[in-house]
This record gives sequence, C-alpha cells and structure tokens, in this order.
Amino acid sequence: MSISEQAYIADNVIIGDNVIIEDGVYIDYNVIIRDNVHIKRNTYIGARCILGEYLADFYRDSKNKYHPLIVGEDSIIRSETILYGDSVIGDHFQTGHRVTIREKAIIGNNVRIGTLSDIQGHCIIEDYVNLHSNVHIGMKSVIKKYAWIFPYVVLTNDPNPPSEQLLGVTVNEYAVIATGSIILPGVDIGKDSLIAAGAIVTKDVPGMKVYGGNPAKEMCDITKIKNRTTGEAVYPWRYTFDRGMPWHGIGYDKWVAKDK
Amino acid sequence: MSISEQAYIADNVIIGDNVIIEDGVYIDYNVIIRDNVHIKRNTYIGARCILGEYLADFYRDSKNKYHPLIVGEDSIIRSETILYGDSVIGDHFQTGHRVTIREKAIIGNNVRIGTLSDIQGHCIIEDYVNLHSNVHIGMKSVIKKYAWIFPYVVLTNDPNPPSEQLLGVTVNEYAVIATGSIILPGVDIGKDSLIAAGAIVTKDVPGMKVYGGNPAKEMCDITKIKNRTTGEAVYPWRYTFDRGMPWHGIGYDKWVAKDK
Amino acid sequence: MSISEQAYIADNVIIGDNVIIEDGVYIDYNVIIRDNVHIKRNTYIGARCILGEYLADFYRDSKNKYHPLIVGEDSIIRSETILYGDSVIGDHFQTGHRVTIREKAIIGNNVRIGTLSDIQGHCIIEDYVNLHSNVHIGMKSVIKKYAWIFPYVVLTNDPNPPSEQLLGVTVNEYAVIATGSIILPGVDIGKDSLIAAGAIVTKDVPGMKVYGGNPAKEMCDITKIKNRTTGEAVYPWRYTFDRGMPWHGIGYDKWVAKDK
Repeated sequence: MSISEQAYIADNVIIGDNVIIEDGVYIDYNVIIRDNVHIKRNTYIGARCILGEYLADFYRDSKNKYHPLIVGEDSIIRSETILYGDSVIGDHFQTGHRVTIREKAIIGNNVRIGTLSDIQGHCIIEDYVNLHSNVHIGMKSVIKKYAWIFPYVVLTNDPNPPSEQLLGVTVNEYAVIATGSIILPGVDIGKDSLIAAGAIVTKDVPGMKVYGGNPAKEMCDITKIKNRTTGEAVYPWRYTFDRGMPWHGIGYDKWVAKDK
Repeated sequence: MSISEQAYIADNVIIGDNVIIEDGVYIDYNVIIRDNVHIKRNTYIGARCILGEYLADFYRDSKNKYHPLIVGEDSIIRSETILYGDSVIGDHFQTGHRVTIREKAIIGNNVRIGTLSDIQGHCIIEDYVNLHSNVHIGMKSVIKKYAWIFPYVVLTNDPNPPSEQLLGVTVNEYAVIATGSIILPGVDIGKDSLIAAGAIVTKDVPGMKVYGGNPAKEMCDITKIKNRTTGEAVYPWRYTFDRGMPWHGIGYDKWVAKDK
Repeated sequence: MSISEQAYIADNVIIGDNVIIEDGVYIDYNVIIRDNVHIKRNTYIGARCILGEYLADFYRDSKNKYHPLIVGEDSIIRSETILYGDSVIGDHFQTGHRVTIREKAIIGNNVRIGTLSDIQGHCIIEDYVNLHSNVHIGMKSVIKKYAWIFPYVVLTNDPNPPSEQLLGVTVNEYAVIATGSIILPGVDIGKDSLIAAGAIVTKDVPGMKVYGGNPAKEMCDITKIKNRTTGEAVYPWRYTFDRGMPWHGIGYDKWVAKDK
C-alpha cells in the first residue's frame, strides 16, 4: 500500500489492499478501489467509480484474486466508470460517465472513451483512438492508432451465435466508423476507410473506401467526399483535423517528417 | 446556501456551496449536489444522482467554476441521473434512471427523458417533448414542442467525422422518430412527420410524411396509416392520443380554440 | 425482517423494512435495499445495486407501497444494477453491470442479462434465456426458454407511437436475434429462427428460418448456415453449443431422452 500525501481523497472512499496512489491524484466521493490498483500521478477519479472490479473468479469463493489494474497519469475518469482488474491503461486517458472496461483490455496513451461505452475486455485499443458515447467493443477486437468510432457502433465477435468461437474485428489506422454501424465478426476495416452511419459490415473493407448500407457495399473513394460548405476534400481526415492529435498545430506531413 | 426545513434529505447526501433547496424537495440516499444548484419545490431527487456535475474546466485545476444548474418544481429525477452545471430545466420534468444531461441544455416544462438517455448539452428541448430510453441527443440539436423520440435513436451533428463543424438536427413540433433511427447532421424533421424504425435519415423530411429505410425515403402521407384493429387513421397523433398532453380530456381542437 | 447471521453485509448498506436475507448472501458496499425484498441463499449483490426500487406510486406521496421483490438463490447481481419491486426472479440468475429491471417482470431460472440492459417490466423471460449487453425489452414481451438476444436489440411494443396500445413481441424457444435488430410490435419470432444483425423485423418470422434486412425478409433455412472453418451445419444451435445449458456434456438429444 502506498498512498501519496500529495493525493486528495474525498469522503467515503474505500481503498483495498496493495493499492498505489501517486502524487497529484484526485479521488472524488464514494469511489471504490479494490485490491492491486495502481493510479499514476495527476489522475482524476470521478465520484462513484469502481476500480479493479472483480472478475468472474471472485464469485466462486468471494475472494479477490490477483488481477492488477494500472491507470496511467494525467487521466480523467469521469463519474460512475467501472474498470476491471487485469487491464492496463495508458497515460492521458479520458472517459465519459458510466464507462465499463472489463479485464485484459490493453489501452494505449491518449485514448478517449465516451459515456456508457462498454469495452468487453480481451482487446487492444492503441494510442489516440477515440470512441464516442455508447460504443460496444466485443472481446478480441483490435483498434489501431488514430481510429474513430462513433455512438452506438458495435464490434461483434461471434460468427455463429451462440458459439464458442470468437473472431474479433480489426479497425485499422485512421479508419472512421460512423454512428450506429455494426461490424460483423472477423471483419477488417481498412486504413483511412469510412463506414457510413447505420452500415452493417459483413466483409472486409479495403483502405481509403467509403462503405455503407445493409449489407455494406462500396460507395466511393474517401477522396470524393467534399465539405458541403467549402467544397474541399475532407478525407483522409488527418489532413483536415488535428484536435487532440500529435500533429496538432503543425500539420500531419510536417509531423511525420519531424518524427523521422 | 438556503435549504428549506420543509425539505427531506436522506443519509449520506453531499451538498456543495451556494445550493438552494426549496420546500417539499425529497433527496434520497447518497446524492451528490455540487455548487450552485437550485432545486425548486416538491421535486424528488433519486438515490445517487449527481447534480451540478463538473464541466471540463474543473479538471484543469480541480476548482469548480460558476456553472449553475436549475431544476424545476414538481419534477422526478430517478436514481443515478447525472445533471451537469450550466443547464436550465423546467417544471414537471421526469427522468428514468442513469440519464446524463450535459452543460448548456435548455429544457422546457413537462419534458420526460427515459433511462440511459444521453443528452450531450448545448441543445434545446422544448415543452412536452418525450424522449424514451437510451436516446442520444448530439450537441446543437433543437427538439420542438410535443415531439417524440423512441429508444436508440441518435441525433448526430458532425457532417464529416471527425471535424470541428457541428450541424445540429431539428425535430419539429409533433414529429415522431421511431426506435433505432439515426438522423444525420443538419437534417430537419418536418412537423407531424413520422420516421419509421431503423431509418437512416440523410435529408430533410417535409411535414406530414412517413420516411423509412436506408437512406430514408418517402413512404406515404401520415394520414394513410390506420390502426390495425379499428381501421381508423392514427396520425396526426395529437387527435388520437392525449396522455400527459395539455389537451388531455378535452381534445386537441378544443384545447387550441380555448388557448386563443 | 430476517437477516441471516450467515450473510455478509459490507459497509454503508441501507436495508429497509420487511427484508429477508438468507444464508450465504454477500452484499457489497453501498447497496440500497428498499422494503419487502427477499434475497435467497448464496446470492451476491454487487456494490451500489438498488433492490426493490420504487414504482411510480411512490412519487405521489413519498410512501413506499407493498411491491415485493424476490431474487433467487445462487445468483450474481453485478454492481450498479437496479431491480424494481413487484418482480420475481428465479435461481442462478446473473446480470452484468447497470442492468435495470422494472416492475412485474417474471424471470425464470438460469437467466443471464448483460451490462446496461433495460427490461421495462410487465414481461416474461423464461428459463435459460440469454440477453447480452444493452438489450431493450419493451413491456408485454414474452421470451421463451433458451432464446438468445444479442447487443442493441430492441423489442418494441407500440404499433402506432405514441399510442395507448401495447402489443408485445414473442420470441420463441431457441430463437436467436443478432446484434442491433429491431423487432416491431406484436411480431412473433419462430422457434429456432435466426434474425440477422441489423434486421428490422416487421412481420412474424416462421420457425427454422433466417431473416434479415430492412424490412426483414427470408434469406434461407437455418440449416443452410455452415461454420466457415469446419463447413459443418451450425443450426439448430442446440446441437452445436451447450455451455450453460441443461444438456451440457451429454448432448441435446440424450438430454431430451433422459428428460422423458
């Protein structure tokens, strides 16, 4: 147990065994921290979060096994979020309210996950991924850097429900999945591609394409989409959008050049 | 700080600075009321609600800025609802459980919002609007009087995700959006119109029309829809339904006449 | 009031009048148990659940009426679940987090309901039904034994929204409804049938068929669907899947024979 004197802990917080709370951490009212949780510096834990929530093995004998949780520094975990044990979360992480992240989620740096999203665990979410509200990420999903997923999108994983197979979805770098799309098990969403709102995606989507409909079909190249006001090409979005991105203020190409 | 002696406050309630609680208010267990919240008379606040939740500026320095919240009288806020600061909510308001309403929401009188709905703020919801469970209202939405929105509907706002543009949806008076429809950014849903379940609405919908499909197309005039049992016309619904409406018991036409 | 000395009750638990807690029950932090709740033996109640939540009549006079709740034995109710009064839940029940189950739900044995699911009450859910995350079950629904419902499925009930009619959906034995489907009011989903992801089901579905699309149409017999890896028929799934089912380890046919 190691709780920094430079941490703020509000009333009615419950702290389990073997917990590490670093300097500058702020823990709001009624938070429950179970055993083996490590909260890195300057991170805010909102009211009534549960950190290190029990895995299924707890319910056999009411004993908490060793399932550590690490929450990175400079993160904001908004109120009523539940994070299971056995997950690792990077720095500059942000959640909305009532997010659930189950065990064996590996989450990179600068990831944001919106209100009510449900991350089923056993998945990989790389740096700078943005999940908006109420996104459902099935087990075995892999979401690569800079991907965006909008509300009510579901990444499924069972090809023949109910079955014991699990085929995760892969979302490649810079891909964008718009509101309410469902991605069927094992599908690969190509780099820079755009899935239109409400699409049911049954097959792999190549890079740089717009897919939409049920079942989703190719609609056009992403470069065909113009801003309705300015008439300029919008995609690949990394040339038109930089908020929260590492190329913020310098532009994507300069950032890539600088990085090399 | 002004807390009426005629208010009931259960155990373990946290009350911030500059809070006004009027006569007849009932605050259930474990509620958190942050600073600058005003709860008008006879309103019920369910267990574990958070009122006046922090805006993003709190997380910079852990100091709560002045973002007042007003909750109208005779309202029922069911348990685990989160209401941000900087919103104004009218009288006779009702929520289900785990509703989230973010900042700069302006909500009229007699509005009802169902369980798990997520109101992203910066929006206007006028009198007598009904949102059912698990509705997602994007920023910049305007929902006019007497509109109905059913479960899993999403009002989107980003025409080229991810972008810095926000084009809100407008839902006009008496319009009905059935379960699971997605309304694309900037779309105007006409007065009295009906959006069929699961529609993906990409363009403006004129008044008095039924739209459905992906992309949504005109299916018929709303007057063509008959009650399957009685064979009578159902729409405009204001002539066939009055529960909770101001024309309850007198009929829409008499109410309109009386009002003039 | 009868609370077993063989029950474990964590800190800050609130227990109302006329509550029965049997041997081996585990009640975690900050649970609220209102009046007339009966928790049978060896059941786990997760942190911050609310059991016996108030019905609408409470809000008239702030008095809790007699609306008993029974939760069966050997059940696991995960954290932040809300169960209303006037419902009866069988043994070996399991929920995810933040499940809401309203009044007059009759739930059999060995039922599982996933995170964020919203059961609107006045419904019947029979033995061995599995509801995955974020399922919405409208009032008057009947879900028969061994049915499976996957994330973001909605069972609707109002044929002419908004109206006073309620026509519930019936899901028959062994039926499977895949992710994101919407079932319109009064529809009957036939035994062993499979509804494809994202379907909008407007008419009754006969047994043993696959339906998909908007509006949903017959795609094929379920027997035509093969496992992509093995090439073997997958459906009826009761011959290929047995986890958690009463025929586990012995096979469906032997179990049926044994049962007779």
